[in-house]
Amino acid sequence: MRAVIIAVGSEMLNQERLDTNSIYLSRRLREKGILTDMKLVVGDNRDYLAWAVRQACKRAQLVVTIGGLGPTADDLTREAVAEALRREMTYNEEIVEQIRERFRRMGMQMPEINTRQAFVIEGAEVLPNPVGTAPGLFLDIEPCRVLLLPGPPRELQPMFDAVLENRIGPLSRYHVCSRTMRIAGLTESEADTRLTAALGRIDNLDVTILASPGLIEIHLMGRSRKEKTEAEEAVAIAVERVRNEFVSHLVTELDESFAAAVLRRLQEKKLTLAVAESCTGGRLADCLTDVPGSSAVFLGGVIAYDNALKRDFLGVSPQTMTRWGAVSAQTAAEMARGVREKTGADIAVSITGIAGPGGGSREKPVGLVFFHLHSADCDQDSRRLMNGNRDSIKTRSVNHALNMIREYLDGRE
Amino acid sequence: MRAVIIAVGSEMLNQERLDTNSIYLSRRLREKGILTDMKLVVGDNRDYLAWAVRQACKRAQLVVTIGGLGPTADDLTREAVAEALRREMTYNEEIVEQIRERFRRMGMQMPEINTRQAFVIEGAEVLPNPVGTAPGLFLDIEPCRVLLLPGPPRELQPMFDAVLENRIGPLSRYHVCSRTMRIAGLTESEADTRLTAALGRIDNLDVTILASPGLIEIHLMGRSRKEKTEAEEAVAIAVERVRNEFVSHLVTELDESFAAAVLRRLQEKKLTLAVAESCTGGRLADCLTDVPGSSAVFLGGVIAYDNALKRDFLGVSPQTMTRWGAVSAQTAAEMARGVREKTGADIAVSITGIAGPGGGSREKPVGLVFFHLHSADCDQDSRRLMNGNRDSIKTRSVNHALNMIREYLDGRE
Repeated sequence: MRAVIIAVGSEMLNQERLDTNSIYLSRRLREKGILTDMKLVVGDNRDYLAWAVRQACKRAQLVVTIGGLGPTADDLTREAVAEALRREMTYNEEIVEQIRERFRRMGMQMPEINTRQAFVIEGAEVLPNPVGTAPGLFLDIEPCRVLLLPGPPRELQPMFDAVLENRIGPLSRYHVCSRTMRIAGLTESEADTRLTAALGRIDNLDVTILASPGLIEIHLMGRSRKEKTEAEEAVAIAVERVRNEFVSHLVTELDESFAAAVLRRLQEKKLTLAVAESCTGGRLADCLTDVPGSSAVFLGGVIAYDNALKRDFLGVSPQTMTRWGAVSAQTAAEMARGVREKTGADIAVSITGIAGPGGGSREKPVGLVFFHLHSADCDQDSRRLMNGNRDSIKTRSVNHALNMIREYLDGRE
Repeated sequence: MRAVIIAVGSEMLNQERLDTNSIYLSRRLREKGILTDMKLVVGDNRDYLAWAVRQACKRAQLVVTIGGLGPTADDLTREAVAEALRREMTYNEEIVEQIRERFRRMGMQMPEINTRQAFVIEGAEVLPNPVGTAPGLFLDIEPCRVLLLPGPPRELQPMFDAVLENRIGPLSRYHVCSRTMRIAGLTESEADTRLTAALGRIDNLDVTILASPGLIEIHLMGRSRKEKTEAEEAVAIAVERVRNEFVSHLVTELDESFAAAVLRRLQEKKLTLAVAESCTGGRLADCLTDVPGSSAVFLGGVIAYDNALKRDFLGVSPQTMTRWGAVSAQTAAEMARGVREKTGADIAVSITGIAGPGGGSREKPVGLVFFHLHSADCDQDSRRLMNGNRDSIKTRSVNHALNMIREYLDGRE
């Protein structure tokens, strides 16, 4: 069974917006052994949308549309799917009553426009939406199934999970088991080469590597037409081989970010962390504080962008900066020591470098970054020449700093 | 002329990665009056890719593929397009020689695998790639044009700009003029209602509103089949009306981020800035330091996540925190005063709040955030109850803080 996802909305074609919905759907489908071959992003144009649905139904056994189920004239998914499948729409009194009741509970009267959401494509099952007005629709029309979901993630996710469990999952001919492992401190090609050699040939296993600046994800998926245990065994063998091959590089086997994996280790060891950032300008702290509950172990720190702040907040000596420069191993060391002393954190990490595009020189080119980790029993420095633009140098530096903390924590017994 | 974009690569279906390439393409095309109706994301599967190209050519006058031009077996775009258009591929000695020369300059020998990049679809124009190995291809096969671009943005952008100028732009039947204005301090629906009323009816004008947490973009596009001046006039009228309607909300009329617009004003007025962040955890500083050259006016600041740091780095009095709480107008005021005093910045801004999901109470719910701006002549505080999850509360808070700085700077004569 193969899937095609159709995301609806002109704003998705024009705006820098992460389409987390379709990532969510393809991940959940993969867990059931259903692979997504294609995604289409279509503007609010009924013709195009109907055409896209018709084409998708010719290629895939499952077509999922996201969005366009709202009450306004821009919301065209119901009509377009009906047109594509050459089916009538019927007005469903029960749905209107539910929407009206929803508005009543909020002390409001239902706007007339919302009656548009009560039209159902002939033969479709209506999927209740406990957190919004737009119901979903599911059509099982051999050999293809068509699923219409609302756009807001908090409405889409529970609705999709239910229909996946009850309707779509049982149609998959595969038993599936999946696992994601994250590693750091290697280039993508190093990781790729070593992974291929380490895994060897494992039956019933699909492997995908996804690399971002400074972090590599290994997705393992076992699939079996016979038994779930066959899929599970394939993944278990792979997990063991990855663990052995990348023992000192393993960030996490859980579904969590790099920062979350580091914070979890800190919490387990009851240690606190502070940071002193120059060229990353707060991005390391931002990543750490993206994790709910981070305040239990992350104290904060200083963005010492200007050199006077390195001196006044962190106690970096002006002589050090004059002699070695603000971008140097010596300054990085004093920044880390300074922030640890001032905050009383168990572990302090500093970053100072040249993120570009300006500011580089022959001796200190753009992308040169110094790091230092300081604790009661450790002074570790690191120097890296990073590739990429300002943004990827910042991200790569943040992940390198997180990896230094991880290595330090994993190294302590 | 209408366009369809096809982004190639399995990783794009499975990873949370912002597809900046297609946003770039659709923006540049729009500037020439060419609208993108659909985007397809296709995995590394030759059949699917050929099918997608064939279908796209039936609907659009311009089909642009992104990626899949590399040297490995996964890179299938050339073959798939040739198959879709039923054309042969020919091996081009000149291209091989250029690639070989490129490797030579880097002191390396060309791997045999790279010869795959020298295959050209019959009838295609070869587009040189000065910064990478993969050349692009352009086919003008009435009534459709097909353009094959490499995936890395720094290779794609100059190549696309050239072909847009020389080949595609001249085919557009429209004269176009476009302008983006950014406003802040209003909800999307307020902005929408006021904008519609203020603009009234303007011929030859397309208006799109794009909202992100705390910032609203107004895209104005004039289009005329007759004359460029007609398009320009439509935009000029609209710009004037937007300026008058949103005079105190206008962030920028240039193509720049909110942070860049604030930094530009600081630079014009020769003023420096420092920040003290609690719940935003460094995101404000990160946004500011994303802008090249920000170090000229942005000094840095403190991430006072833990209360002890609010005291030790910023001099917030323990009594204030005990009496009013760390999330209070009083603490915010002392944070701003403290960071200004310690850094000597002209302007200091502080943020303290509850980003959730935990930590809320009846009196201080999740989303409650206090802000303070302090300068020699101003003490301005602000209190907001923000909607959304942890991530959008952080972003909305950052944009609110930027807007306070902007309002302060715009208010000073």
